Amino acid sequence: MQNNHQSRDVFYVSDGTAITCETLGHVVLGQFALVAHEKTFPFIETEEKLSELLRTIDLSYQKNGIPPLVFFSIVIPEIRTQLLHSPALCYDVLESLVQRVKDDLQLEPKPKLHRSRSVSKDVDTYYDRIAAVEYTLAHDDGITLKGIEQADIILLGVSRSGKTPTSLYMAMQFGLRVVNYPFIDDDLKRLKLLPEFEIHRHKLFGLTIDASRLAEIRQSRLAGSDYASLRQCEDELAEVEALFRREAVPYINTSSLSVEEISTRILEKAGLKRRLF
Amino acid sequence: MQNNHQSRDVFYVSDGTAITCETLGHVVLGQFALVAHEKTFPFIETEEKLSELLRTIDLSYQKNGIPPLVFFSIVIPEIRTQLLHSPALCYDVLESLVQRVKDDLQLEPKPKLHRSRSVSKDVDTYYDRIAAVEYTLAHDDGITLKGIEQADIILLGVSRSGKTPTSLYMAMQFGLRVVNYPFIDDDLKRLKLLPEFEIHRHKLFGLTIDASRLAEIRQSRLAGSDYASLRQCEDELAEVEALFRREAVPYINTSSLSVEEISTRILEKAGLKRRLF
Repeated sequence: MQNNHQSRDVFYVSDGTAITCETLGHVVLGQFALVAHEKTFPFIETEEKLSELLRTIDLSYQKNGIPPLVFFSIVIPEIRTQLLHSPALCYDVLESLVQRVKDDLQLEPKPKLHRSRSVSKDVDTYYDRIAAVEYTLAHDDGITLKGIEQADIILLGVSRSGKTPTSLYMAMQFGLRVVNYPFIDDDLKRLKLLPEFEIHRHKLFGLTIDASRLAEIRQSRLAGSDYASLRQCEDELAEVEALFRREAVPYINTSSLSVEEISTRILEKAGLKRRLF
Repeated sequence: MQNNHQSRDVFYVSDGTAITCETLGHVVLGQFALVAHEKTFPFIETEEKLSELLRTIDLSYQKNGIPPLVFFSIVIPEIRTQLLHSPALCYDVLESLVQRVKDDLQLEPKPKLHRSRSVSKDVDTYYDRIAAVEYTLAHDDGITLKGIEQADIILLGVSRSGKTPTSLYMAMQFGLRVVNYPFIDDDLKRLKLLPEFEIHRHKLFGLTIDASRLAEIRQSRLAGSDYASLRQCEDELAEVEALFRREAVPYINTSSLSVEEISTRILEKAGLKRRLF
């Protein structure tokens, strides 16, 4: 019977940020019963940095008696060749896809330094993205509704339902301008939509959450407070969900979802286009 | 001679968020002279959503007379099979890597719904990440230095040198707690490090930027102001860079770097470990 919990050193290596390598390698390894000791080596673009990496690979091999795994993306031919000759199991994360697209489309690939999301690729697009982060930050948590007409989406929800991290992720990843607005205690007694939202109705999107989860999150902030009591959480959520239904505001429950999942689901339901950087 | 600018519909398809598919597909296509019309289809996990996608593929094929490209990651076998039988060029973004790791390690993969960065995978880790975003937001732009001892890193720089987006990215992507502190006009006349930073010296990291680029960014905010004048930018940057050198604070120039590149370079130089989610 094979060993179900092999342990391996895993290195993510790139002449760029190595973010794509680590994301992909991490997902691939998630399918195996393997304890991975992961380390990332970005910007391997000089002989000096390569030497350091090769030493690390050698040491790992000597120490463990088995080759480390390397998920890599390297364009510079000499660096690539030397890496491939090291005592590691090397996986080029792009090669097989590039090869297949090449064959299918009969186009020659032009490998280039892997600068996904780099500034130089498209300056205006990049600054749009930064502007989206700044807009979103300025419109966090109801700070202001000035400039609301520039919003791509307006998130509504009770305090601690996940609005802020979701807003920032949507801005950073997809370049969207997000306003988020909390329902606070005072609003709850006479719950209705702000008049300012009326002409932006199509941009409204609600976040809700299980009351028990919300109470837990609030407890970690203000233990023992009314604000964090299960009763208070239940009341607030009931009011707010009733409002969402009454006003036909689409909404999702964020309880077991990551910011990536929440953001993606909102984009999908709201019919917003993702922007790729 | 082959056509150098083929145009193709490109679909990113997953039973998860499809973020990995689109990142990877986008990078792969970046190597080809191809005009890609990209669209993303997340959460393809029901027959209904699959049907909608298959209709889109059919329509694309009919309209263009050539098959669209599909970069996908689908675990559910029936959905996978139907997709593979559609009139599209389908690329499984994980398959070849999983296969090679399987062969090399002699381990059986256990495909699972692609929930990279999901909450359920590791609740504590996920909430650490959200806590990092909240910490970073609370310590943006010198708002407070309370709790500075919990910071993983402290970014210093003049106004508009890229501190805020970089801080938020480091928190969101790597789960780091970041304090960022601007040098403002008053500080500049008697420029030294705050006494509060003294015992956290090893956490300090500086951002600088080309004066012309800084002036351009500031002009778009406050056109015609002293603040945005090239002279003022040059003076501030000279002062601040002198301080960085005098105090041996490591620093980088952010002018042509994206937040991903800035963050990765800082992590590398500061010897901070990336956390993978």
